[in-house]
Amino acid sequence: MKSVLFPLLAILCIGITTAQQSTIKVDQDRLEDRIFKLAEFGLQENGETERVAFSDADIEARNWVIQTLKGLELEVQVDAAGNIIGTRKGTDTTKKPIAFGSHIDRVPNGGNYDGCLGSMAALEIIEILNENKVSTQHPLEVIIFPNEEGGVMGSRAMAGNLGKSAFPIVNATGYSMGEGIVRIGGDTTKIESAKREKGSLAAFLELHIEQGGKLEKEQLDIGVVEGIVGLNWWDVVFTGFANHAGTTPMNARQDALLAAAKYIVAVNEITNSFEGTQVGTVGRIKAEPGAPNVIPGKVVASLEIRDLSSEVIQKVYNAIKEKTEEIAEASNVSVEFLPLDTTAEPALTDTKIQKEIESSAKALGLSYQYMPSGAGHDAQDISRFAPVGMIFVPSKGGISHSPKEFTSAEDMANGANVLLHTILSLDKQLD
Amino acid sequence: MKSVLFPLLAILCIGITTAQQSTIKVDQDRLEDRIFKLAEFGLQENGETERVAFSDADIEARNWVIQTLKGLELEVQVDAAGNIIGTRKGTDTTKKPIAFGSHIDRVPNGGNYDGCLGSMAALEIIEILNENKVSTQHPLEVIIFPNEEGGVMGSRAMAGNLGKSAFPIVNATGYSMGEGIVRIGGDTTKIESAKREKGSLAAFLELHIEQGGKLEKEQLDIGVVEGIVGLNWWDVVFTGFANHAGTTPMNARQDALLAAAKYIVAVNEITNSFEGTQVGTVGRIKAEPGAPNVIPGKVVASLEIRDLSSEVIQKVYNAIKEKTEEIAEASNVSVEFLPLDTTAEPALTDTKIQKEIESSAKALGLSYQYMPSGAGHDAQDISRFAPVGMIFVPSKGGISHSPKEFTSAEDMANGANVLLHTILSLDKQLD
Repeated sequence: MKSVLFPLLAILCIGITTAQQSTIKVDQDRLEDRIFKLAEFGLQENGETERVAFSDADIEARNWVIQTLKGLELEVQVDAAGNIIGTRKGTDTTKKPIAFGSHIDRVPNGGNYDGCLGSMAALEIIEILNENKVSTQHPLEVIIFPNEEGGVMGSRAMAGNLGKSAFPIVNATGYSMGEGIVRIGGDTTKIESAKREKGSLAAFLELHIEQGGKLEKEQLDIGVVEGIVGLNWWDVVFTGFANHAGTTPMNARQDALLAAAKYIVAVNEITNSFEGTQVGTVGRIKAEPGAPNVIPGKVVASLEIRDLSSEVIQKVYNAIKEKTEEIAEASNVSVEFLPLDTTAEPALTDTKIQKEIESSAKALGLSYQYMPSGAGHDAQDISRFAPVGMIFVPSKGGISHSPKEFTSAEDMANGANVLLHTILSLDKQLD
Repeated sequence: MKSVLFPLLAILCIGITTAQQSTIKVDQDRLEDRIFKLAEFGLQENGETERVAFSDADIEARNWVIQTLKGLELEVQVDAAGNIIGTRKGTDTTKKPIAFGSHIDRVPNGGNYDGCLGSMAALEIIEILNENKVSTQHPLEVIIFPNEEGGVMGSRAMAGNLGKSAFPIVNATGYSMGEGIVRIGGDTTKIESAKREKGSLAAFLELHIEQGGKLEKEQLDIGVVEGIVGLNWWDVVFTGFANHAGTTPMNARQDALLAAAKYIVAVNEITNSFEGTQVGTVGRIKAEPGAPNVIPGKVVASLEIRDLSSEVIQKVYNAIKEKTEEIAEASNVSVEFLPLDTTAEPALTDTKIQKEIESSAKALGLSYQYMPSGAGHDAQDISRFAPVGMIFVPSKGGISHSPKEFTSAEDMANGANVLLHTILSLDKQLD
């Protein structure tokens, strides 16, 4: 009898039934209130919030998050990289944690939702589980990653990919990454201790605003993220000969900017010439010497290519490089492609988790589509050692990294509910 | 008898005959020595000279020129704009001066010949005339114009075109034009006094290095300048929408840099599509926000068009503007052409003076061609109130505004001899 009675007693004592569990929902108002509360850390006189990683505002917001997690009865640790990890015990001590979370640092002149939604939804999910006395077999981990915007610092450290060479990089606060880690309570001499071994998490889930306009345009509630696109950066250097614009005839010029202009047009044409959702961008350009009356002798232009497939990135790159070399030769200019140290491998999400996200959305009566994430996220690095899933909700006008960033309370709650029910489903199914 | 005897006596007493005059030549070594001497003002440890207008080096060089002119028995004045004017009396007090000269200020990181040749040749011509006791009917004026490189300041003041609005412009020395005028002994409150009335000079002549590669390429000694091209500058502003390069599909972009790139290609194609020697240049470009992972929302690119004819400039501009507006519309980007305050009207040289330069070159056994000046010069503004002529000599490799600028002593002496004999011919012919 004991084996039958104990679960029954447990349910009576600690909470609701599985059937009831399937209907619980997050508190939409409380979720939005926390988004607004978080926006107070770093609030400026103009009504906008500045909270770049390592700033005083960032530290104050982190302290508030830590206190909130403790108030929700989680066991809170800050690892050597500054990741905030709040753990809620599971009922089965043999099971690995199911983790979820995001980041609360922001780009300069950023918005209230990027990262903040996934972070505040994590707090809300813990609170609603507590209120409904829902226990899970797996421990649950809320992770708030530090300095996502400055190079996914916390998640890279968890993946064992944060080298000491990154520590001197200074962000908009004026602090280097190394100084910043110390400021937020980490320890640069023990950064390796933040590394998580492969298989140490049962799953990681991240809810995030789309930061693009696809869901809004197609009036869909949820994006089931198939993967996070990889990206490669290059500096493309054109070298001609700087000369007097008045005295050098058109046919005697070695105009580096003219060659670069043809390259920019080629990047667009070639990226569009392949099937698929790959994107190719030239966002930065510098022409030297840079005077209206001097033919530019040197131009450095960036190249970024993103896709879910490394092979597609390589294919597009090869075609751009070949065409650009033709352009340079015809322009009597030399060209060089210099790879930059910002390469990120594409990260596919776990197909089983994708299906659970889809099922949860369906069960909640929400519309959805499968889509790639064009932006990088902490989930990208976590995928190196754990199965990951990502849930997108609409961004108004596709605007992000801007004070104009906006996602409605309803859309936020939809995403948080999908996250909640995906966690509960995975809890039942994962080892 | 008196009327016959006087000239004969005069010749015996004061110098050489007209026949002898036609064979006098400048002292090539002395001319080159003065070029080297001048290069000592502002000489740096790296062996290159820096002498931007208003610098201490500029002031020291000016003082040396003034002392040299006085040593050559000229009457020296500095006008309110800082023009150094050395006058050698003529024998006919009814005649207006024949003026010649150039500038001794340099662009940052410039060379030893641009402006310096015309200036040192002027000193040499006075010296050789003195040595040979050659008098002229017209007074001769050596003019050393200040701050040519910072906007033909001295000659503009002589033409009455230097407004007070130019005074706040700061150059590489950190001094504003107003402060600089005071430093070099001018007077900003009396700038109008530097203005020369129309007809106040019989002629103005400027010897200059070509600053292009035409004479060298065709192995010619002398360029007879037909005119100084006019130039117009615009800022061309493309406004799209800055957005995340990862999350914005290719077909949803309003990429200001892509539109600007197509514009740059169009500037080249359209400029080449017309017959003639017009040039069109995009030398400056700025893309904002300027990160490899952000689609540029705003680009400002320059446009410069130069030609001897204002009509041609307008025709090329119209065609570029029309095409660029098409490009912008097709790119879902807006475009605006903002004229910059650097417009210079084309300046034609005097045809009679051109012929005298040609005759002098022929008489000296030098090869020559007629050609436009693609670069601006002080002669451009002087042409507003006096007949002007310009003589070019070859620049090695067409290089200018660079420490690599070079013209051989022989080429310099050829140019100075043509200048000398053009002055002597004009002296006989002009009223």
